[in-house]
Amino acid sequence: MKFVRFTVNAKTSQGVLEHETIKAIQGDLFAEWRFTGETYPAQDVKWLAPLVPNQIIGIGANYVAKVEERPETLPDIPVFFFKPTSSVVGPDDPIVIPGANEQVKFESELAVIIGKEAKNIDESDVLDYVFGYTIGNDVTAPQYFHEAGHWMIGKSFDTFTPLGPLIETELNPDTVRVEARLNGEEKQNSATELMIVPVREMIAYLSRVMTLKPGDVILTGSPLGAELVGAGNVIECEIQGIGKLKNRFVDQLI
Amino acid sequence: MKFVRFTVNAKTSQGVLEHETIKAIQGDLFAEWRFTGETYPAQDVKWLAPLVPNQIIGIGANYVAKVEERPETLPDIPVFFFKPTSSVVGPDDPIVIPGANEQVKFESELAVIIGKEAKNIDESDVLDYVFGYTIGNDVTAPQYFHEAGHWMIGKSFDTFTPLGPLIETELNPDTVRVEARLNGEEKQNSATELMIVPVREMIAYLSRVMTLKPGDVILTGSPLGAELVGAGNVIECEIQGIGKLKNRFVDQLI
Repeated sequence: MKFVRFTVNAKTSQGVLEHETIKAIQGDLFAEWRFTGETYPAQDVKWLAPLVPNQIIGIGANYVAKVEERPETLPDIPVFFFKPTSSVVGPDDPIVIPGANEQVKFESELAVIIGKEAKNIDESDVLDYVFGYTIGNDVTAPQYFHEAGHWMIGKSFDTFTPLGPLIETELNPDTVRVEARLNGEEKQNSATELMIVPVREMIAYLSRVMTLKPGDVILTGSPLGAELVGAGNVIECEIQGIGKLKNRFVDQLI
Repeated sequence: MKFVRFTVNAKTSQGVLEHETIKAIQGDLFAEWRFTGETYPAQDVKWLAPLVPNQIIGIGANYVAKVEERPETLPDIPVFFFKPTSSVVGPDDPIVIPGANEQVKFESELAVIIGKEAKNIDESDVLDYVFGYTIGNDVTAPQYFHEAGHWMIGKSFDTFTPLGPLIETELNPDTVRVEARLNGEEKQNSATELMIVPVREMIAYLSRVMTLKPGDVILTGSPLGAELVGAGNVIECEIQGIGKLKNRFVDQLI
């Protein structure tokens, strides 16, 4: 099933996408919802990030170039970080570069959406707690990283977490490729089997630390090939089965 | 005004504390609320963390020992970090130590609660966006810090952010002292004028990065004197005008 969020006639709604039609729904995606009876042609509405996340967790440097390069043992403490929910934007929204003449990095990622409260879960049960998948662009301004290794500011600017275009509940996270094209030119294109910490291990690990909640979004890391870019560039992140998430980098309005 | 959250008869409510009586309220603390007419003696209810935060932001190493030691210029990029909302507990709740025979650090802190959306605000206007103040204990397990400087796991375990006992809206953040007593013995006791990045500068800086939202909680750093402690110890954080936040460290149940 494909869930979307959108505005039409100045009202924000949720819906299910079937072919090119959005059937509006009402309720809580993670609990109970029902169709309202309203339908809209998909191209006539403004698409938003497909959910308002409860929290956003990311993982650093999680892809190798070749399967043979995957380390034999997983890191004891993976590099996890939070991004603020205030940084979320949707498809076609601008990504605002914080300083004049600065560059920021795009990072195309498979985003996992938690659907049920998860604490101390086993790797083999992880997918039972996953509601679905979307695409995340973990935009990063490394010039705002703290010299002692704290990434918080460089990850937290408004517009730095495009999500979308929709939530696909039927995806197999083991067999997808994570792609990015900069101004039409391929920059990232890796199978998720190149992850150092795979999805199940990642979420089981997090659940041993904290109670994951419905609406938590986990950005599972970005393939090799991310680049620093400036205003005017257009980044299109793609995962087949989910869709394309396209955003333009712009300068801050002074 | 003093706002509390509590359970009574298996129901969670909000209220206003007046002397030793809680007058229950209904609605959104940051928008519109009204008295329900119900009242409870304060000692007859189970006190909870006084809010469910939207997000939690902390700042690292933010106190000096003496006013003369305050740096002349503020850091370009202060050490900020997020804590998950799943880590929040209330007064008298146990703080669960993650591993057997491990120790964790208590950190008594003034917690600022944002009441209005804040983006690019001036230092002189910051207090207009503050709803009130509570006490936070920024519990930390430094053994789970990543060697490259990422604090996320060590700050994120369930029960690692006791908040309470109440939200005081009338406090002057410039003239309070932040205290902690371990098993009755004073360990922390500093005036907030010993902060390296003071409250107004801290919040104005954050608002230049991200849109702060109602319910965001900012832990403003901990005075010198925090210690590593194990199970069985009792920590009491205090700020006069807000109250006392007492929690016991316990081992994980196996």
